[in-house]
Amino acid sequence: MKTTGNQSVKIIPLGGLEQIGMNITAFEYEDSIIVVDCGLAFPDDEMLGIDLVIPDITYLKENASKVKGLVITHGHEDHIGAIPYALKELNMPIYATKLTMGLIENKLKEHNLLRTTRRKVIKHGQSINLGRFRIEFIKTNHSISDAAALAIYTPAGIIVHTGDFKIDYTPVFGDAIDLGRFAELGKKGVLALMCESTNVEREGYTPSERTVGRTLRHLFDENKDHRIIVATFASNVDRVQQIIDCAYSCGKKVVIEGRSMVSTISTAAELGYIKIPDNTLIDIEQMKNYVDEQLVLITTGSQGETMAALSRMAASTHRKVSIKPGDVIIFSSHPIPGNEKAVSKVMNELAKKGASVIFQDTHVSGHACQEEIKLIYTLTKPRYAIPIHGEYRHLKRHKDLAVEMGIPKENVMILQSGDVLTISKEQAKVTGHVPAQGILVDGLGVGDVGNIVLRDRQHLSQNGLFIVVVTLDRYNGVLLAGPDIVSRGFVYVRESEKLMEEAKSVVTNTLEHCNAKKITDWGRIKGAIRDDLGDYIWKKMKRSPMILPIIMEV
Amino acid sequence: MKTTGNQSVKIIPLGGLEQIGMNITAFEYEDSIIVVDCGLAFPDDEMLGIDLVIPDITYLKENASKVKGLVITHGHEDHIGAIPYALKELNMPIYATKLTMGLIENKLKEHNLLRTTRRKVIKHGQSINLGRFRIEFIKTNHSISDAAALAIYTPAGIIVHTGDFKIDYTPVFGDAIDLGRFAELGKKGVLALMCESTNVEREGYTPSERTVGRTLRHLFDENKDHRIIVATFASNVDRVQQIIDCAYSCGKKVVIEGRSMVSTISTAAELGYIKIPDNTLIDIEQMKNYVDEQLVLITTGSQGETMAALSRMAASTHRKVSIKPGDVIIFSSHPIPGNEKAVSKVMNELAKKGASVIFQDTHVSGHACQEEIKLIYTLTKPRYAIPIHGEYRHLKRHKDLAVEMGIPKENVMILQSGDVLTISKEQAKVTGHVPAQGILVDGLGVGDVGNIVLRDRQHLSQNGLFIVVVTLDRYNGVLLAGPDIVSRGFVYVRESEKLMEEAKSVVTNTLEHCNAKKITDWGRIKGAIRDDLGDYIWKKMKRSPMILPIIMEV
Repeated sequence: MKTTGNQSVKIIPLGGLEQIGMNITAFEYEDSIIVVDCGLAFPDDEMLGIDLVIPDITYLKENASKVKGLVITHGHEDHIGAIPYALKELNMPIYATKLTMGLIENKLKEHNLLRTTRRKVIKHGQSINLGRFRIEFIKTNHSISDAAALAIYTPAGIIVHTGDFKIDYTPVFGDAIDLGRFAELGKKGVLALMCESTNVEREGYTPSERTVGRTLRHLFDENKDHRIIVATFASNVDRVQQIIDCAYSCGKKVVIEGRSMVSTISTAAELGYIKIPDNTLIDIEQMKNYVDEQLVLITTGSQGETMAALSRMAASTHRKVSIKPGDVIIFSSHPIPGNEKAVSKVMNELAKKGASVIFQDTHVSGHACQEEIKLIYTLTKPRYAIPIHGEYRHLKRHKDLAVEMGIPKENVMILQSGDVLTISKEQAKVTGHVPAQGILVDGLGVGDVGNIVLRDRQHLSQNGLFIVVVTLDRYNGVLLAGPDIVSRGFVYVRESEKLMEEAKSVVTNTLEHCNAKKITDWGRIKGAIRDDLGDYIWKKMKRSPMILPIIMEV
Repeated sequence: MKTTGNQSVKIIPLGGLEQIGMNITAFEYEDSIIVVDCGLAFPDDEMLGIDLVIPDITYLKENASKVKGLVITHGHEDHIGAIPYALKELNMPIYATKLTMGLIENKLKEHNLLRTTRRKVIKHGQSINLGRFRIEFIKTNHSISDAAALAIYTPAGIIVHTGDFKIDYTPVFGDAIDLGRFAELGKKGVLALMCESTNVEREGYTPSERTVGRTLRHLFDENKDHRIIVATFASNVDRVQQIIDCAYSCGKKVVIEGRSMVSTISTAAELGYIKIPDNTLIDIEQMKNYVDEQLVLITTGSQGETMAALSRMAASTHRKVSIKPGDVIIFSSHPIPGNEKAVSKVMNELAKKGASVIFQDTHVSGHACQEEIKLIYTLTKPRYAIPIHGEYRHLKRHKDLAVEMGIPKENVMILQSGDVLTISKEQAKVTGHVPAQGILVDGLGVGDVGNIVLRDRQHLSQNGLFIVVVTLDRYNGVLLAGPDIVSRGFVYVRESEKLMEEAKSVVTNTLEHCNAKKITDWGRIKGAIRDDLGDYIWKKMKRSPMILPIIMEV
């Protein structure tokens, strides 16, 4: 693909720039659009009752004829989790490395999309042509195997997208990141580097995954005579490999537990990304044939998720595994921000059952720290830097780092999701905006819960609810029945009899006032009930429950 | 006080052993009870709408005549916050060091309890006799000045209670912890050591508060030309002292902002715990008379609390301070577990406004790490160890550490709040239980929100609400009006018209069925509505809102 000096392409992030999660970016040139990643985000604390958040792909749907394909960097939920939702709106062929594709296919099967979705497995080093773009997959390291960075050859120049990565000189599976290729691209000339920002606030290097293996080996040696339970991320296949290796070398049998763990490890094993020695893996049903010290469980639940296997063990609601004194439980993970208390709760419950809980030095990150990011800048020597994957403060810190690395300040582009960046050798500039707010998924509903609904849930959760029902004569507004008051989430019923009686007389008074003033508009009557009752409860209790007046007419 | 071999005393923790917070312990011998600390806890995530949690002092009220006084170790909320609530139930004299008492008095004033509460300020090294107990206050270091450990002389022997502490050889204010006194007590013979456990999972030592001062000094030097805003804990008077010193040496003026910050620093200044150079402090109203680079703000909000000053500045709702590009904002704090996301949100908002946000190496803990705890064990050589202040996993880790220090396993007592530990030189044993569940405070209501109410709030917050109202003829059960359906927190109204219509016909069907089957019990009719409508919504949406059928009779 020839590049001429004055061509410009558009880079349109549709997510991932206000948060860590929901990564998706479109690249557009004339009649061609390619999409990189299509991830979900987990809901914030204030998104009550929401299951997950997916990107808004309105822009892609509006330009459906241009969309040439979806290119995926690796198989984590924040990069592949929204694919089924997107495909239901817009059919696109998918390009990914082998393990990544295996994990995507598991999702497509669940959503009945496997048959209708074109897919192509790409090897590291291989390139594909999609419309006016050529995309080359470059080997990287991450906390899931088969991660790729992308070199996107565009008419305006080469854009390097790192995906999520770290530099691991001694990876557990496969090769180290292909730094040589980054260097070659640097020699050719890189227009823009889109580098991830997760760990940009951390100095130094992220240690090799193998360092965790060494710690685990020590822990297994020290606890030979105990049943060992290791909780980790289902997707960290290399970690699971190391746990299995430790178990094997101690002569222990391994049980894999937790739905996502079983599914990921099966896929990884089928595709050759994990090697399980013969006679090592046993089914959970076979556990009873072994004594405790012969057993290792590898389980989900390292983030304290209520329904995950380890949490159910801790709460004594797991049907197959009971925690007992002597059990050694290793959290091979760090809590993701926001999960600290949930994790701590599970640890306390496990400790109360007599288990030893170990969580120190048993995890390394999958993301590059400052020195690694600097190395990528040094190798690729980009003209522009576009920090990606992070909250604003990460992008900002990344900008400072890029400037330290010699990128001119004005060439570091901090974007927001929805920005249309038009970029050429001469300039880079935000030239438009497209919809990019996350869409909330609650049960089967996609996008039907919005701010009003969330505000109501918030209000109900903080203060509960007061329902006032009155039946009025439809002709003269005379009170035929009620006021009846039902409250929920407000106060114990037995504590509140007097309060309820007083509340009823407040409402009766309000109705009499309205009647005396000849107010017949039911909206106004409801408003008056809400105001008077609200004042009464605030004065009495300093609380503001949601008040719902309902008028029935007979 | 003579101790004879076979006397036993009771130690009754009424809080603080399942969590970090709500510290309160009673010590009882014959006709005497003393209470150490009376703190509150902040609500867990699942305690929706709860403001704070206070201890249950039923046992103290039932033994009111025995209670000789309340002895306070230091002025943090988790040690003094529940005092006003307790005093309203049970009048007790209070004993504390000067700054601690000053902070308590602020609370008593707010609750109109100052006049009716006897108070005595105690100096470090001083002892008081309360009934059959003698209590000696021992100088310690902590993240608030004037912290004390207690030596409690009982007929069964000396019990040492550390309060919250660290070992700071170079404190900012006053002396280092009185290690010599701990050693003397060790020589005399200590029956039991009640040592705090907050940092027991951390190896090594907590650095001196002064190390933060050095970092701050560098940051102030580097940012001479900027307005500097420092967020920290209102109660960390020594930290504020160091910030003021830095500001003074740069020739900057200081504004103190945030209600609790202003109140604590005023008290500390009045009592001589902080030295503010003349002409350094200015009122927030005077800020306009200075250029940015002359100004330092010290503010609350380091934990991302929505209503705190810094959060309001970040959200552009602070009436006096607008964040602007060039501002340097230092978080001199770590997020308390559970606050990580809130803190991060505020940092992002500040960064978006162009401020530089600094949060690394700008805080040290106020709690002892493993080596410090070991030192206290070595000095006091207790017969029994009773780990306090921590979640179960902290207490468990503390037990392991005590055993490492040579305390026999059976002499390390992990208690639960409410346990009555009967302890003598011969044995220590849990001999009873008293009520000790936290009491929830919501607005003016103390204890009127319990599990049922919280479960309802949880249900409402996750799934919202469906109210079904029907008016029936009181004589023949004929439907006179409705079914009317009101939903909140469920789905956008405009999205749900069809759903609402269908829901109504589901309810109409149910009522017809009930009528056909001659069901006249309204409880059963409501149950049928709940079941049928619940099934319908689950099938349609995979959600389970709270369904509230209301039957009006006319």
